[in-house]
Amino acid sequence: MRAMDAATAAALAALVRNERVAALGTLRAGAPDVSLVAYLPAPDFSSIRLRLSRLAWHTQDLRCDARASLAIIQADDGRPDPQTLARVTLRGEAAPMPDADREFMAVKTAWLARFPESAVTFELADFSFWSLAVRDARFVAGLGRTHNLSAPDLTRAALA
Amino acid sequence: MRAMDAATAAALAALVRNERVAALGTLRAGAPDVSLVAYLPAPDFSSIRLRLSRLAWHTQDLRCDARASLAIIQADDGRPDPQTLARVTLRGEAAPMPDADREFMAVKTAWLARFPESAVTFELADFSFWSLAVRDARFVAGLGRTHNLSAPDLTRAALA
Repeated sequence: MRAMDAATAAALAALVRNERVAALGTLRAGAPDVSLVAYLPAPDFSSIRLRLSRLAWHTQDLRCDARASLAIIQADDGRPDPQTLARVTLRGEAAPMPDADREFMAVKTAWLARFPESAVTFELADFSFWSLAVRDARFVAGLGRTHNLSAPDLTRAALA
Repeated sequence: MRAMDAATAAALAALVRNERVAALGTLRAGAPDVSLVAYLPAPDFSSIRLRLSRLAWHTQDLRCDARASLAIIQADDGRPDPQTLARVTLRGEAAPMPDADREFMAVKTAWLARFPESAVTFELADFSFWSLAVRDARFVAGLGRTHNLSAPDLTRAALA
């Protein structure tokens, strides 16, 4: 464990911005469950936005227990040692976002720029934005290079 | 939800065999946590083998509560809609495997064939194999193509 230098912070910011999907951990009947989600980071990484269907298991899970863990993992590029792939786990609580306020419009615009194919979800009543408020994070920049981060550490990496 | 046809079963088997890393969900102080692991499926998919360091958080978690969820997600290839990526979540209980019996040697050989760079972990005392015994699974072959599977369903896909 150590403080992040500038290059490490830049690698973290690139990972969070460049990947598009993540593994969402929720509680289901008291046991962990993991599923795929598309995500959009807030510009300052203080929260991560998800667009969830109320029909999905993970959404049902979050309505029962807001605690969530989101692992953003560098896509496997076939390198000899996949343990060197960069990844960060963000932990916090998730809550649905209000529909149709000013923040909703900004998030919708950014979401559609990142996921143009998801336009249809804005015509379906069962989808809404959720925001995962990040409490802390664990960044593994590569084998043995682990950084435990607070939410302010993450924001410093986002704004560097 | 529907039974798997032959093409879907083949897609599931290819996903489990071709990916090398997965997102492991464990319980940490009662909350979900997700981390990256390399994995090796048993030939019949009845269990998934992991090589874990006892120093890692997820290993500490599994020693407290064996329940685990492992999401194997097709690596993002930059397609327009990442929600169409195939993924399967395997749920069950994880336990350490005995060292140095005949099964250990077979798993070690297969592990080194898949992860040659991990040879060093066989010289370190803190690594051991764990086996996630699969109880059930959820396969999302693509948007809206979800299959809830029993362990025997998975084995049928493995042996097809």
